[in-house]
Amino acid sequence: MNKNQPTRPDGTRDFSPEVMAKRNYILQTIRAVYQRYGFLPLETPAMENLDVLTGKYGDEGDQLIFKILNSGDFLKDLPADAVTSMGSKKMASKIAGKALRYDLTVPFARYVVMNRGTLTFPFKRYQIQPVWRGDRPQKGRYREFYQCDADVVGTDSLLCEAEIILMINEVLGKLGVQNFQVKINHRQILNGIAEAIGAMDKFSDICVGIDKLDKIGLDKVMQELADRGVSGESIAQLKPILAFEGNLQEKLTYLTTLFENSPNGQKGLADMRAITQMLNSFAQAKDFPTDLHIDFDLTLARGLSYYTGAIFEVKVEGVQVGSISGGGRYDDLTGAFGVPDLPGVGFSFGIDRLYDALEELNLFPAEATVATQILMIGFDEASFAYCLPYLYELRQAGFATELYPTVEKKIKKPMSYANNRGIPFAVLAGSDEMQVGEFSVKNMLSGEQQRVKAGELKTFFATK
Amino acid sequence: MNKNQPTRPDGTRDFSPEVMAKRNYILQTIRAVYQRYGFLPLETPAMENLDVLTGKYGDEGDQLIFKILNSGDFLKDLPADAVTSMGSKKMASKIAGKALRYDLTVPFARYVVMNRGTLTFPFKRYQIQPVWRGDRPQKGRYREFYQCDADVVGTDSLLCEAEIILMINEVLGKLGVQNFQVKINHRQILNGIAEAIGAMDKFSDICVGIDKLDKIGLDKVMQELADRGVSGESIAQLKPILAFEGNLQEKLTYLTTLFENSPNGQKGLADMRAITQMLNSFAQAKDFPTDLHIDFDLTLARGLSYYTGAIFEVKVEGVQVGSISGGGRYDDLTGAFGVPDLPGVGFSFGIDRLYDALEELNLFPAEATVATQILMIGFDEASFAYCLPYLYELRQAGFATELYPTVEKKIKKPMSYANNRGIPFAVLAGSDEMQVGEFSVKNMLSGEQQRVKAGELKTFFATK
Repeated sequence: MNKNQPTRPDGTRDFSPEVMAKRNYILQTIRAVYQRYGFLPLETPAMENLDVLTGKYGDEGDQLIFKILNSGDFLKDLPADAVTSMGSKKMASKIAGKALRYDLTVPFARYVVMNRGTLTFPFKRYQIQPVWRGDRPQKGRYREFYQCDADVVGTDSLLCEAEIILMINEVLGKLGVQNFQVKINHRQILNGIAEAIGAMDKFSDICVGIDKLDKIGLDKVMQELADRGVSGESIAQLKPILAFEGNLQEKLTYLTTLFENSPNGQKGLADMRAITQMLNSFAQAKDFPTDLHIDFDLTLARGLSYYTGAIFEVKVEGVQVGSISGGGRYDDLTGAFGVPDLPGVGFSFGIDRLYDALEELNLFPAEATVATQILMIGFDEASFAYCLPYLYELRQAGFATELYPTVEKKIKKPMSYANNRGIPFAVLAGSDEMQVGEFSVKNMLSGEQQRVKAGELKTFFATK
Repeated sequence: MNKNQPTRPDGTRDFSPEVMAKRNYILQTIRAVYQRYGFLPLETPAMENLDVLTGKYGDEGDQLIFKILNSGDFLKDLPADAVTSMGSKKMASKIAGKALRYDLTVPFARYVVMNRGTLTFPFKRYQIQPVWRGDRPQKGRYREFYQCDADVVGTDSLLCEAEIILMINEVLGKLGVQNFQVKINHRQILNGIAEAIGAMDKFSDICVGIDKLDKIGLDKVMQELADRGVSGESIAQLKPILAFEGNLQEKLTYLTTLFENSPNGQKGLADMRAITQMLNSFAQAKDFPTDLHIDFDLTLARGLSYYTGAIFEVKVEGVQVGSISGGGRYDDLTGAFGVPDLPGVGFSFGIDRLYDALEELNLFPAEATVATQILMIGFDEASFAYCLPYLYELRQAGFATELYPTVEKKIKKPMSYANNRGIPFAVLAGSDEMQVGEFSVKNMLSGEQQRVKAGELKTFFATK
């Protein structure tokens, strides 16, 4: 290998035309659903000022933010001994004033704050852009990946939550995914549970612990909670709650008793009932899906996030990938920027995981390719020129068409170009065809070949 | 203003929903044309390894590359006195191993080199992604902006050049731009001119000088060439050549004489003739445009770029913005990465300038908006619920529809939401409408209001 051989940074990817076509198929599907639900597109720059990002993702997150070196003589205001007197962390804040966005939520909050005087609330926006994180790259985890957010801010209406459930169903339905679960829970229900087991002061620990159930199992979570100071009595009470089985209605009934003395828990239950009721009204619609795949999951916690109301997570069954979508309600999007009390609710699709799931389930349709449909081939200078007006007309008629750019003595080269590129039809012209004003059209799949009058090419392909 | 008020980095922009809709209209138009011409989509990561980028854009360009600070303890291998002993430039190369892409060409070359074993050549790709440059921000010049490249590599067929001219015409035609010029020249013709005036050794200086004609005028360019050591005799010969007026054919004839003893110039002329000839063959097509807006411009040079063959630039008349598209043929895309002799030709649209041009010419169609089409409003809890199944059905029928998310006693709030958002229809439901299974539909523009049966809503809007 040449020593100049260039490389790509760890954890980043090139998207080849084949992959792009499939990704675009997913993104178009999501975009179309978002727009029909009234969400508007927004894009923010890749760079944000560093102070906009820091302090929003916890210490660990701050470490993963990619910082951009200041332009010009970035050392000019530093003391000569800065390497030893400052250390990397402090120096970074002096020599890097900008950083790559870490998620789409903080830039969105920044946008809302900067434009709050002119925005119409409730403001519904979607945003599909890459984000960057300095995580250690591993299978399925990248340093550049796309997020695909939809948020409504400026309302506490639970219609938003009901619509999120519908949007998830619609996107996955259109993508052909049949077996999935929209897990839903509510922060106030988790709050009520903490209250009911007498461990209100350990609410955060309980959320973080429960969040690991999937990965480490019930016993280890209980051990971890004990280690974090949750009492044996509380743990004993928590176990049957997390283990309770039943459908949505049965869980609601069970929790109603449990939350008799927990106003927080009752608020969570009231929200869950209201969301359910709205979905029941929606269900009067013609052709409404018979199953919304809702799983009221008391063990869903979504870690240390800023959510305060309903929380969501979507799992596709029968595939290796983790959750493909998640979100929830927050009551303070922009508080960190000095604008309090702007509630909202949002969710996001993980495009990479969704891609992997569709691949694993073999759900990409044949149309999810971008390929030239017709390759014209001229066997000599004259027939090359003869092709040109028809090339133009086929394109005008909407067919992605190419003319093999050189005249080749042997047909092998253009033919293997068509094969490698997956082009389904070759249109051949030599002196024979030209003389009678025709083309030979070859179906690359079947090998079948036939003559078509030049003037009838467009019509011929229109029926293919 | 709150002291926490967040800011956005200089030279970057947020794209609001209104702007996004117009940008998407432009990008969709370009994408559709590119695809019909057989170009396939490609995307590369925002970050490249720094050594992939440096040395490709000249010293000035290298200074403008945004470098990304290494993660973790980036100072750990530096000497204690690095601030004084190294200086910013040297230290940057030690503490920043990655950088943001500066254009789409170098990442494309890197991609081609890394995948040359599996790609089918000629490889035609298009790439629409942002690039970043640490230029001083000013009107119309941003630190993050989109490029929109299409390249064919692996062939020297002049069909590519002819097709670029057609693609530019098609994109601008579809966007409604009527007065524009596709300026075309050829590096070998410039070479021939240098040869003809006996200044072959000053070829680069001549290109750089000519490139400034637009900005500083003929006299100043001549002065600059003299300063750079071009002889008075050569300058005297150059002036009438650059001033020569005539159509394409007249210029070809004029140059044929001039290039009698210049093989380079003759090669350039032969290419120009071949391109013209192909366009004449294309013109046999039905509905072919009567004018391709070609301007064979001997003063087009495209500065110090790596072009070696035909070069292009597109100007829209009657607007302030500079050229909106440019490109040309190069014979060595990947030489810097140790893979020589891969020729190609490419061009790019400048989306920001094209946007400004369409805005200035008032050419954005009314459809270039993303807006909700219908706002439903429920006046009490019961009619709110009554709306839900119809909300679902309208969306299923393809209408971007929202239900105002809360029940408001006064109609003013939802109505001003509809007005501010530019939603053309409001569908109102109170107890009156509900009782008889109808809705009141209000045309927000005309103020006209009428009753529509609930089951006929979809049909009603289908005819609007």
